[in-house]
Amino acid sequence: MQFTLEARSKNARAATIKTAHSTIKTPVFMPVGTIGSVKSLDAEDVLNLLGAEIILANTYHMYLRPGDKVVAKMGKLHNFTKYPKSFLTDSGGFQAFSLSDISKPMENGIEFRSHIDGSKHFFTPKKVIDIQTNLGSDIMMILDDLVALPATQERIKVSIERTTAWAQESIDYFRSQQAKGICVDQNIFAIIQGGTDKAFRKKSATELCAMDYDGFAIGGLSVGELNKEMYDTVEHTVQYMPEDKPRYLMGVGTPEDLIENIERGVDMFDCVMPTRNARNGTLFTSFGRINIKGAKFKEDTSPIDEECQCLTCKTYSRAYISHLFRSKELTYFRLATIHNLHYYLNLMREVRAAILEDKFAEFKEEFYRKRS
Amino acid sequence: MQFTLEARSKNARAATIKTAHSTIKTPVFMPVGTIGSVKSLDAEDVLNLLGAEIILANTYHMYLRPGDKVVAKMGKLHNFTKYPKSFLTDSGGFQAFSLSDISKPMENGIEFRSHIDGSKHFFTPKKVIDIQTNLGSDIMMILDDLVALPATQERIKVSIERTTAWAQESIDYFRSQQAKGICVDQNIFAIIQGGTDKAFRKKSATELCAMDYDGFAIGGLSVGELNKEMYDTVEHTVQYMPEDKPRYLMGVGTPEDLIENIERGVDMFDCVMPTRNARNGTLFTSFGRINIKGAKFKEDTSPIDEECQCLTCKTYSRAYISHLFRSKELTYFRLATIHNLHYYLNLMREVRAAILEDKFAEFKEEFYRKRS
Repeated sequence: MQFTLEARSKNARAATIKTAHSTIKTPVFMPVGTIGSVKSLDAEDVLNLLGAEIILANTYHMYLRPGDKVVAKMGKLHNFTKYPKSFLTDSGGFQAFSLSDISKPMENGIEFRSHIDGSKHFFTPKKVIDIQTNLGSDIMMILDDLVALPATQERIKVSIERTTAWAQESIDYFRSQQAKGICVDQNIFAIIQGGTDKAFRKKSATELCAMDYDGFAIGGLSVGELNKEMYDTVEHTVQYMPEDKPRYLMGVGTPEDLIENIERGVDMFDCVMPTRNARNGTLFTSFGRINIKGAKFKEDTSPIDEECQCLTCKTYSRAYISHLFRSKELTYFRLATIHNLHYYLNLMREVRAAILEDKFAEFKEEFYRKRS
Repeated sequence: MQFTLEARSKNARAATIKTAHSTIKTPVFMPVGTIGSVKSLDAEDVLNLLGAEIILANTYHMYLRPGDKVVAKMGKLHNFTKYPKSFLTDSGGFQAFSLSDISKPMENGIEFRSHIDGSKHFFTPKKVIDIQTNLGSDIMMILDDLVALPATQERIKVSIERTTAWAQESIDYFRSQQAKGICVDQNIFAIIQGGTDKAFRKKSATELCAMDYDGFAIGGLSVGELNKEMYDTVEHTVQYMPEDKPRYLMGVGTPEDLIENIERGVDMFDCVMPTRNARNGTLFTSFGRINIKGAKFKEDTSPIDEECQCLTCKTYSRAYISHLFRSKELTYFRLATIHNLHYYLNLMREVRAAILEDKFAEFKEEFYRKRS
């Protein structure tokens, strides 16, 4: 993986990440493709209508179904899903923690039961690397020890110590595998933990960033804390992260969250928000959110967002989209998803252009002005 | 509407129908777009991936939601849905009959309650023409008096007498509206009833075909009768239908049904089968049906149908499609629908080519040979 920092506008950064499968321009938002498909879209949509250079797939889901060995046999994620650009896969730890009926973080890993059939499984740092090797993701994430917030200081302490220990085990194993010619085209990121506690975040960041990772993520945020706490934690943590490697804020967030965290030096984001909200009727626009349920849209011949160039806005009226929504028509989900993801990806293209011209502050001001 | 009969191969016909919005080459299968969208597809898909020149929309559904007056205000069906080719709309009678909690066929029309909110409505021959005028369909269907099969001779007798009386009322009203400059670009088809009784079918066909309609449909079949009864009824009824107008068999059917009825002189078909079956996992291929649920497809790298040129078959493996199906992923519905409709539309293109070369018999033989 090649990381080139191209410009900075205050702390906001524009960079290029080159993987074996694509060239990713940052800041970047990665659409979530949980089971190897961005919900309601196909690979052609993601490529041609959104122009996404990287999407996320969930290790937990792909491991349980169809199984990482099946994916490997089918030519790994890229050939199985026919999305030829980059994949980032999470470690599966978050889903094992949040979706499983029983999930036990233990000294050596996380024990959990499948949400599909109740079968028992055990994720260890090495096991999730093996799974992600089978998946063939361009960027894999290590297993980390998550804690639900709020948590006691003692539990957070255990979490970051365990995360550091697992990170050491992970990087040693990953590099030794590469030395054997395995997963040579893949990259690996560590995940900084520590809740909203500044001392713990510093300790976790300092310990992990001393290791030979290709990039670093900030995990354990967007779990119910106040926006200000999230922004402060990111601002604080970024200080201890290297300049010459990508910074990824996991599971974030609203358009406002993206802008605020880009300002604090984050390069990469993922979130189910644009896709999930689309399905619930919430559409993002340059002037804020609308809910297509509203009766006022029933005879509205204008597009969702006059400024938007997506297929949905170029073709259909709010009246038609709201009719599809009311009728619970399958077509609705795809058209709304295309719009929301296009909004997110286009916002990232625009903010990047502003950073390259050293006009991030002006961009941010205009971004908020439009939605006030 | 301009109807040109181009070729005949035994009784199978190839014709061209020119409406104000498109040129339709027959035999034609019309995808069903109940509420103004073919389930899971958008207008661009229907145009670009399927090349459909005509789709069907349901008068009952559009009348109840968003309302035919709303559709008229939004620029009628073509502008509301952005599908610019031809629309055929049914009369709404069938849905009033089958979907409504209460439905009463009466001397002057059909009383029913909305399946959405229970509100009471009354469809008359004139009312459904007014609704379809608002919808702006290229081909509208008249209100007919449906009977569930099996039915008594007495009930079928009432049905065809009432259907004839309504047909006379409909055509008089429609032509008088046209004389006033209303619905001048629209066309109207009558619907022959009579169950599987040959005398009743002859009577109904003879009476209706004497009227000034643009085309004629055979209704009241594909309601549970044996295949042979359907084919025999069509073969019998077609004799009393004019050569120089389109013949439409409503609500039919399987690929085999299409071939059999084309052989008997039918030009137009519609059915929810390719779209509904796609959603349930049944996929049509040149060698018969498969159910993608089957465990054998889990690691099958071949396309659904090696001979198929649809987006789904050109891009994705059975393994991936079966994974999407198992995961109940929204993406599955669109990819399966694209395949099934492409299969149906392509079958019609192939049978048309065979008729133009006077090789229908050879085509039919090969069609059955492949699936034996």
